[in-house]
Amino acid sequence: MPTATEQTTWTDLVERVQEAGLLHASASVLHWDQETKMPPEGIEPRGAQLAVLARLAHEQFTSDEVGELLAACESNADLTGDPESDEAVTLKRIRRDYDRNTCLPSSLVAEEAKLASQAQHNWAEARRNQDFTQFQPWLEQVVELLRRKAECFGWAEGGEPWDALAEGYEPGCTAAWVDSVFSPLRDRLQNLLQRLMGSETPPSNAFNELVLPTDQQEAFVRDIAASIGFDFQRGRLDVSTHPFCTGFHPRDVRITTRFHEDNVNDALGSTMHECGHGIYEQGLRQDQAGLPLGEAVSLGIHESQSRLWENQVGRSVQFWEWCLPKLRTHFGDAVGSLNLETIYGGANIVRPDFIRVEADEATYNMHIMIRFELERALLLGDLAVADLPQAWNEKYKEYLGIDVPNDAKGCLQDIHWSMVSMGYFPTYTLGNLYSAQFFDAAKREIPDLESGFAKGAFEPLKEWLNEKIHRQGRRYLPADLCEVVTGAPLSADHLVNYLEEKLGAIYGL
Amino acid sequence: MPTATEQTTWTDLVERVQEAGLLHASASVLHWDQETKMPPEGIEPRGAQLAVLARLAHEQFTSDEVGELLAACESNADLTGDPESDEAVTLKRIRRDYDRNTCLPSSLVAEEAKLASQAQHNWAEARRNQDFTQFQPWLEQVVELLRRKAECFGWAEGGEPWDALAEGYEPGCTAAWVDSVFSPLRDRLQNLLQRLMGSETPPSNAFNELVLPTDQQEAFVRDIAASIGFDFQRGRLDVSTHPFCTGFHPRDVRITTRFHEDNVNDALGSTMHECGHGIYEQGLRQDQAGLPLGEAVSLGIHESQSRLWENQVGRSVQFWEWCLPKLRTHFGDAVGSLNLETIYGGANIVRPDFIRVEADEATYNMHIMIRFELERALLLGDLAVADLPQAWNEKYKEYLGIDVPNDAKGCLQDIHWSMVSMGYFPTYTLGNLYSAQFFDAAKREIPDLESGFAKGAFEPLKEWLNEKIHRQGRRYLPADLCEVVTGAPLSADHLVNYLEEKLGAIYGL
Repeated sequence: MPTATEQTTWTDLVERVQEAGLLHASASVLHWDQETKMPPEGIEPRGAQLAVLARLAHEQFTSDEVGELLAACESNADLTGDPESDEAVTLKRIRRDYDRNTCLPSSLVAEEAKLASQAQHNWAEARRNQDFTQFQPWLEQVVELLRRKAECFGWAEGGEPWDALAEGYEPGCTAAWVDSVFSPLRDRLQNLLQRLMGSETPPSNAFNELVLPTDQQEAFVRDIAASIGFDFQRGRLDVSTHPFCTGFHPRDVRITTRFHEDNVNDALGSTMHECGHGIYEQGLRQDQAGLPLGEAVSLGIHESQSRLWENQVGRSVQFWEWCLPKLRTHFGDAVGSLNLETIYGGANIVRPDFIRVEADEATYNMHIMIRFELERALLLGDLAVADLPQAWNEKYKEYLGIDVPNDAKGCLQDIHWSMVSMGYFPTYTLGNLYSAQFFDAAKREIPDLESGFAKGAFEPLKEWLNEKIHRQGRRYLPADLCEVVTGAPLSADHLVNYLEEKLGAIYGL
Repeated sequence: MPTATEQTTWTDLVERVQEAGLLHASASVLHWDQETKMPPEGIEPRGAQLAVLARLAHEQFTSDEVGELLAACESNADLTGDPESDEAVTLKRIRRDYDRNTCLPSSLVAEEAKLASQAQHNWAEARRNQDFTQFQPWLEQVVELLRRKAECFGWAEGGEPWDALAEGYEPGCTAAWVDSVFSPLRDRLQNLLQRLMGSETPPSNAFNELVLPTDQQEAFVRDIAASIGFDFQRGRLDVSTHPFCTGFHPRDVRITTRFHEDNVNDALGSTMHECGHGIYEQGLRQDQAGLPLGEAVSLGIHESQSRLWENQVGRSVQFWEWCLPKLRTHFGDAVGSLNLETIYGGANIVRPDFIRVEADEATYNMHIMIRFELERALLLGDLAVADLPQAWNEKYKEYLGIDVPNDAKGCLQDIHWSMVSMGYFPTYTLGNLYSAQFFDAAKREIPDLESGFAKGAFEPLKEWLNEKIHRQGRRYLPADLCEVVTGAPLSADHLVNYLEEKLGAIYGL
């Protein structure tokens, strides 16, 4: 039995951590409002509000008091005796967050915020002018600052600066490990792409040429979102320029999508993608809200949930068997002439192109691997910032067989680096790999999983994900979670096998 | 010239106060979201987020550090030498807020929060059951706690407990002063109401019997809101159960309204009312955001702005000359048969009834005066809580000539007292009185003000209000502001003269 004082210490720590979490949640409400509802002139005061919330949340969490409470709890065998107990795991994760949040000098944090603001501004300008040289001095500063930041965090022996930065997005992830997973993926994907592009019977593009009223599209995607398990009693769907998901608590999760008359496939894919994120957030443990066991484990695992619903479910033939009647109900004659094969084929069309965010399921990972290799080399000093455009364009030629026409469609297309952020990109492809591996495990464990989709039976998959992944919170590191859930370490095979099988059939290979 | 240290002290104080303001603004975003967008299940976590923001804002503002900075600034003649300077006025108002926020023991604050929660719950239950005795023990506790709270604040010699509470809503306002303003109002209104009810030519009610689609109503009220000067670049209009306005900054002001198919008059009145609040918030000084000179001066003055646009403008014959073509554009044949006289008469119909929030321009103030007299007597101990229903019903018979059928339509209809709030109600009628007096001043100073409305010229009035009232912030106490703007102390004559003239003509007296 812990003594009354020990119990109070634990309760106090939990309270402090949860309060910081409530401030982060409040900031998320303001961010959501900014992206979906805020009037144009509201941007400046909103920045000031968010800055105060961020500072207070940081101060609250990194206070000496939290440090002392944490140390006291760690030395309490009642809490840490069983390393698998909720308390012990919670303390371990709080310790990791506390150390990571307290090791940066505040001067560096301020310098980073200032640089991010300036670099983003200059990046936008350079992109508008299709001129990398305008952004080059800023990116040089970004790389230099990120190296210093990585030094503060430190990395394991045999590791490299990239690892220290990636840890912020994907705990436990190193460049060497990513490389070992990505290398076979790159080879097999290149091979698959060449074969697909050589197909003499590619699918029809008719589905992607439909023009459908956006209000009908909205009713359609709301129907789908509710059907696959996004709970509208505990969430909302709105419109924003870039679709996103944000959760303030498992009881209040907001997702967004976007609509273009000539791209219902984008609205549906974006909605199912964000539903996947949203179902994860809604599936977190409510009794651990604001604590590590009630938080998502990593960006990669989060992305696995969005990709799984978007791709493994939403681009499956069984899904479309179920969805086609709904499509006809919502859009009537406008889709009447399209049959299952045309729609399923159109939803899975593969087209190598320059722009990452518009890429299909097969080429997307090539975009990510290029960025990973380049940012890793930049941080190691193996690539000079001045040489980035040439290196970028060479890799696009090599991996995707396309000639990048200008920097705006090349190395200036993404905002991430200008936000002083490296180590982030690979989480997208890790998400794709995890999703395929999780889905293979789900197929083994849930009888008639895919044939169920044809009858609208999505609940078994959602419950399986709830139990295996969502309710685990941050109990395991992401790579360990994969082993626990699937029985094997992460491998690119699951994704490539899935793509080869599905796309091979669609392309008549 | 202030020394560098003195300058720093002032800057530090301003920063601390503004940060507390940013936390309040953030909380307001969460409140707005809660009333307009939040999914049903979000209510519990939202309460926790708001509680943390409220506590931190309070701690931030009432810290010893703020107290020391404030004292240091007050003793600095460079800041306070000219008592009319922005700095001197700002310090005076911060001092008042600081003392008021620090004089309550935290045990009382906690007790109040707990009682409010319980009392509201029991009030809702009692109202559902139309049974005052269920609420009586809670109201007894409310009165007892409010007396103690008033003791903490204290009141001027010759004053009474009610004054100490009203100070929180209407600085400088006392029960004796309110009584001196309300007494002539009551007498003249009673007389007017008797004459109106005896009219043999009351206006037609046809306008209030229209059934119009709510989406058309929304387009209509948006058109009107923009036309009278609510800036949608710096604000939004949404729907909520109870219309309200909240401003996070002059650049981001949110108003709401509501729609019923059979009550376009309510949607329009609510929208113009909230526009009035919103135009005030949008008109505050941006360079003083989060500081007293960038804040609204009182609830009464705020209400004067909403009532002015709702009534003096929105129920004038000139407004309807301009608005009738718009009404026809938005609703077509559905309103085609109604002429100006019918619509103008219908918008001004007077009907004594039980429910305050549904009351017309003439009877509304009777509801308020009854509440003021009763809560004043409760706090003084002149009226026992047990005797409230009887006292309530007697006053309704005396002032409005109606028999209250049950407590739900009587003394249980308002939520305010169950929120442990007294001293609030009179600000509604003070707002009506201020609006009439301000409007008389505007008519003197702006050539062709009312005839301009017939041509859609609302800008001159908005600019006059911007200059005379909005940009003053909290420079003057509300009663003093009235004298500065209108050249005379507040008097009920302006409102009653206006009502006698307008309604007398409509009712053919």
